[in-house]
Amino acid sequence: MTQESSSADLALGRRAMVLLDALAQHSDEPTRLTRLYLSQAHRRAAEATLGFMRDAGLASHIDPLGSVVGRLEGTNPDAPALLIGSHIDTVVDAGRYDGTLGVVLGIVVAEALRRQGVAPSCPIEIVAFGDEENARFPTNLSTSQALSGRYDPTWLDGTDQEGVTLRDALLAFGGDPAGIATVKRDAARYRGYLEVHIEQGPQLEAAGHAVGIVSAINGITRARAVVTGEAGHAGTVPMTMRRDALAATAEMVVAIERTGAIRLDTVATVGVAQVQPGAINVIPARVDFTLDARAPDDAVRRTMVADIVAECEAIAQKRGVELSLEPFMDSPATPMDARLMRVFEDTFASLGREPMRVASGAGHDAVAMAHLCPSAMLFVRCKGGVSHNPAESITVEDADVAARVLLQAVKTLVA
Amino acid sequence: MTQESSSADLALGRRAMVLLDALAQHSDEPTRLTRLYLSQAHRRAAEATLGFMRDAGLASHIDPLGSVVGRLEGTNPDAPALLIGSHIDTVVDAGRYDGTLGVVLGIVVAEALRRQGVAPSCPIEIVAFGDEENARFPTNLSTSQALSGRYDPTWLDGTDQEGVTLRDALLAFGGDPAGIATVKRDAARYRGYLEVHIEQGPQLEAAGHAVGIVSAINGITRARAVVTGEAGHAGTVPMTMRRDALAATAEMVVAIERTGAIRLDTVATVGVAQVQPGAINVIPARVDFTLDARAPDDAVRRTMVADIVAECEAIAQKRGVELSLEPFMDSPATPMDARLMRVFEDTFASLGREPMRVASGAGHDAVAMAHLCPSAMLFVRCKGGVSHNPAESITVEDADVAARVLLQAVKTLVA
Repeated sequence: MTQESSSADLALGRRAMVLLDALAQHSDEPTRLTRLYLSQAHRRAAEATLGFMRDAGLASHIDPLGSVVGRLEGTNPDAPALLIGSHIDTVVDAGRYDGTLGVVLGIVVAEALRRQGVAPSCPIEIVAFGDEENARFPTNLSTSQALSGRYDPTWLDGTDQEGVTLRDALLAFGGDPAGIATVKRDAARYRGYLEVHIEQGPQLEAAGHAVGIVSAINGITRARAVVTGEAGHAGTVPMTMRRDALAATAEMVVAIERTGAIRLDTVATVGVAQVQPGAINVIPARVDFTLDARAPDDAVRRTMVADIVAECEAIAQKRGVELSLEPFMDSPATPMDARLMRVFEDTFASLGREPMRVASGAGHDAVAMAHLCPSAMLFVRCKGGVSHNPAESITVEDADVAARVLLQAVKTLVA
Repeated sequence: MTQESSSADLALGRRAMVLLDALAQHSDEPTRLTRLYLSQAHRRAAEATLGFMRDAGLASHIDPLGSVVGRLEGTNPDAPALLIGSHIDTVVDAGRYDGTLGVVLGIVVAEALRRQGVAPSCPIEIVAFGDEENARFPTNLSTSQALSGRYDPTWLDGTDQEGVTLRDALLAFGGDPAGIATVKRDAARYRGYLEVHIEQGPQLEAAGHAVGIVSAINGITRARAVVTGEAGHAGTVPMTMRRDALAATAEMVVAIERTGAIRLDTVATVGVAQVQPGAINVIPARVDFTLDARAPDDAVRRTMVADIVAECEAIAQKRGVELSLEPFMDSPATPMDARLMRVFEDTFASLGREPMRVASGAGHDAVAMAHLCPSAMLFVRCKGGVSHNPAESITVEDADVAARVLLQAVKTLVA
């Protein structure tokens, strides 16, 4: 364990927790936290965030897509600005830290700069995005994509489970579908984007680190597979004459797990396997399964997926079953900016902390922001690696470490 | 291939096919063959069978449980009788050979004995059982169990899917719940039971044999297993920190298949595997699966199951997942009678045919009858090993071979 509380009063961490608890009050459901993009709870949380930003002295507004933006001008108004942000939408039955932590820490840093009388040389913008979880509409990081000019207008026609279009939801929220183009930023006017997020995994906890530096956001390949064998009587067909779709799939799952584990920074998961006909006394005729494979390096990921396909095809051929394995997602990796990572590392060193690099297995707004400007992320240790769950938990000590690292890095970047 | 048509006219086989086609007309459903125990179709098929038996010169009746019994007296009325039988109930959407073939061949043999002027020294009884498929009530071979005095009266309280009790169904059929005891036979009065049945498996077809001699009806162990791991984000939890319930189950399925295949005459099947939560991006937390393991020898089966349990427990321990594996059925094997098997073998030799022994993976009325008297079975090759399906198919040539083997063996046993 590295030391966790060199700041004896934990002032920044405590302040972050106050703001997190305040925002957690805004939910679409009475007994659990659910704050979907453009819902009434999202509106209330956006207005609360707007209030916190204004209290921190930021010139703030809610943009046409519902993102909350607060801006602190710099002593040199022409210098490219520094962005800090994350999202305030949540999944259904969520925890209170995923996304919101990064927004709150941006505000806490702005408050600290003001309190400490630091005048940044360049503008600082804090952004609370609204559509990161992809939990309501069939979009993909729409609010952050808009900043880099990558908003696809057909997203407005997407509907939620109730059949409401994103366009109508945006109008009901008080947004402006016609204003999307105004959200786009000029890349030349931005020097970088920083995002703090809970890790959503157990690596920092296992290594005893409060905060880690994200090396890359992993690329993802997803595929659907169908293994077709032959049904038969579980009592009468000899083992040597079977074409058992489940036994074949089992061997493939073991091969996928082994291939995913060859490197420390790759993962491969079979999350779904549906067996037909699914009776105790019938040899399985068909299994539908899914593959989710991720790596911080695209070449590594494609090699891994090719190895998996080759292994599964060899297993199918050996067993006389048919295999159809169809990739339907190939999302490239997003390496974090090397210079910004070095700034974080120097900050860790200046605070007497050992830096740890971790790859992000989950996607983040930083994937979209990296198309606009150099981007970097910090991960905060979360209990048991749990997220997307009310049991999501971080400590005030860790929040304080993250706030101090972010504050120090911002000071360096805006000096 | 051994020769298939030394009887050039195939008279017995053709006659069997005529009777099989006639009985296949009696179905509870208009467009497919379904003849559940005590249904109207079962009643019509029983009456048709009764007619065939009477035409063959047998003193015949439908017994209190709906079984059709035809009796040919012997020249020595005190000599223990020979039983020949099988069942005329079917599964839903059945083929026309499963069960019915054995009843029809008994009738064909009785017809041939009469036509050839053979006077048996002992009585011959042909029985068409009605409740072998366990497709309507929660019973287990109830009509044949009744002959050996093993009918459990609580079976009468069992209900079908519509809530009809077996008792009420039996009364509606014209049966007599009070007459069950009269169905019981005196073991001293019976010398043996012979049953012909389709193989329901592919071994005879693979070996090129029309008919096989059943060595034993396999014992069965069935178990339900639950593997409990830990759910997690498919992107953020490193492979080394996972407790993936599906990956663990996959390794167990491979081990079960390998253990089931150590001997040629054993089988082990995982027919059901249900994955929770079952999402492409979530590491599986729990898998419920089933085990069905069979062997012709009980000691072999218990050793196989113990090996499977030990392997699965070792896999669970290695992976840090929990395993609960609970057997809920332990049905012993029924070895066929050695003397009757030798009579069949001698018959094969006298017909110039090479005998092949096969174990039965499925249960049959012979399991119940073996409690009454020495029992033996012949299997008839069926196309692709398919049964419980309208595609169930045998050839007239194979039916003819089976009829001639049965006729010759009966002549030997009643001489």
